[in-house]
Amino acid sequence: MEFARFQETSMTRIDQCLKQQLKQKAEAKHLLSAMEYSVFNGGKRVRPLLVYGAAQALSAFNVDEQTQAPHATDLCAMAVEMIHAYSLVHDDLPAMDDDDLRRGKPTCHIAFDEATAILAGDALQTEAFSLLSQSQADLAPTTQLKLINILAQASGLIGMAGGQSLDLEAVDKQVDLAYLETMHAHKTGALIKASILMGAYCQADINPTQLKALETYAQAIGLAFQVQDDILDVISDTKTLGKQQGADAALNKPTYVSLIGLDGAKEKATTLHQTALDALSDLPGNTEQLANIANYIVKRIN
Amino acid sequence: MEFARFQETSMTRIDQCLKQQLKQKAEAKHLLSAMEYSVFNGGKRVRPLLVYGAAQALSAFNVDEQTQAPHATDLCAMAVEMIHAYSLVHDDLPAMDDDDLRRGKPTCHIAFDEATAILAGDALQTEAFSLLSQSQADLAPTTQLKLINILAQASGLIGMAGGQSLDLEAVDKQVDLAYLETMHAHKTGALIKASILMGAYCQADINPTQLKALETYAQAIGLAFQVQDDILDVISDTKTLGKQQGADAALNKPTYVSLIGLDGAKEKATTLHQTALDALSDLPGNTEQLANIANYIVKRIN
Repeated sequence: MEFARFQETSMTRIDQCLKQQLKQKAEAKHLLSAMEYSVFNGGKRVRPLLVYGAAQALSAFNVDEQTQAPHATDLCAMAVEMIHAYSLVHDDLPAMDDDDLRRGKPTCHIAFDEATAILAGDALQTEAFSLLSQSQADLAPTTQLKLINILAQASGLIGMAGGQSLDLEAVDKQVDLAYLETMHAHKTGALIKASILMGAYCQADINPTQLKALETYAQAIGLAFQVQDDILDVISDTKTLGKQQGADAALNKPTYVSLIGLDGAKEKATTLHQTALDALSDLPGNTEQLANIANYIVKRIN
Repeated sequence: MEFARFQETSMTRIDQCLKQQLKQKAEAKHLLSAMEYSVFNGGKRVRPLLVYGAAQALSAFNVDEQTQAPHATDLCAMAVEMIHAYSLVHDDLPAMDDDDLRRGKPTCHIAFDEATAILAGDALQTEAFSLLSQSQADLAPTTQLKLINILAQASGLIGMAGGQSLDLEAVDKQVDLAYLETMHAHKTGALIKASILMGAYCQADINPTQLKALETYAQAIGLAFQVQDDILDVISDTKTLGKQQGADAALNKPTYVSLIGLDGAKEKATTLHQTALDALSDLPGNTEQLANIANYIVKRIN
């Protein structure tokens, strides 16, 4: 399947699942609106793509085959996307990055209010664990627990939230490459890795070789994504990026470009890209889309 | 066991468990400090008491018998307390209740900063689900999933976070008794009920009669707690309360006293107290501490 069609099919599929999931009866209708607003924010659904891509790399899962009830793979895709959406809502808050716009639309605390945005983020996080713990015919209970634990570890103190805190601590400080990598591995890498592992684990038990391959791939594309972000911040323009070009430099934020130079960063992205592709040969299923995602990450222009 | 000793033993036990749990290796040390600060905030640990009390009401669980590794009951007690602690941190934020002090100590965003407080709340929520999903020898995987699902439902859109949103919506509005009850049932009642059900479910499967008894007890004490809060806001003084007496009236917040009068509220508290005690007769174990907690709730002076 061409990557563009895989992207489109996956996005339609995850959007349908999320819409269905959030169509629940709730007394707190205002809060539910804010949650819906935050989940349907025009994002590229990279993490769900990784869930579906990893599922295909381990089994005969086909993103084209729709099932009546959400497939276990869909639950994972929804859960990681809800965690991602919650993190964006909280990151945008005045006390954090203080962003009024995200992808051209008012951020949640602008469209609603700050208190509602805090609660919407909170409730989206809870919803992720709620849906992963609901009874699911095509998953063994031990697998469900594993998925919940992978997601929790990737989201909290030793994952995304920890990385956000490390990022806050780094502002206006001179940090080294090791700190930068630890920070990104927590802040974005952990959830990217969780998406891949969850997509894989909900198909079958993974053997140690496959686990190692998935982890290598995940780590490489997670880092490559960040390196490419730093490169684009320097070489792109504001219109293409959809956000202020040169923002990192202006904020005196440490980046790969500031630490190892533009050529060094480009070389690093190329190496990571190759590491990711090489790792895929150890997987039994169709790794076409995981390869496409790796290509997309280093070739994207925004 | 006397209630005072049960309280003391339970509080020591939960504090030890939480200290151990948070003594984990983490790169994000600043965030971990904020999480620890928020969990050890001098609270009365009412929800862990309910977990332990419900465990005793269903089985031979004894809060005095310490085990080397945390008992499944301790996991539940820790998880509900972490959810409660996260909710207090977020409730105290400037965009929410804007409180500088909690039990005489600076609130998390004052002791640290607002961004760290948001992240500490976020990560405490995650930690609750992380520890409930870790492999636990004395729990069946299906039971673990049930516990996670109970806690998630009680904390999110259709529970605590939803209740907080309903509360925000009610400010400066004329609401009726039905709205007030729905709001409190979500905001505080849901987590109280979850504490009781989790304490019970991690001992054994609950039969429908026991489940009904526990739910009746939970609903009655949850509501009684709120009614008594509203009574104390009128009849107590600032020093005894540890917070501003008359604060609800000053904020024009709807309360049981404002809606049904002081005598009506007192009568309601008495009726709810009796309903809670009556429900306990359907439980097989030692219900002494659940009865004591019901007594404490309507007889407390702060």
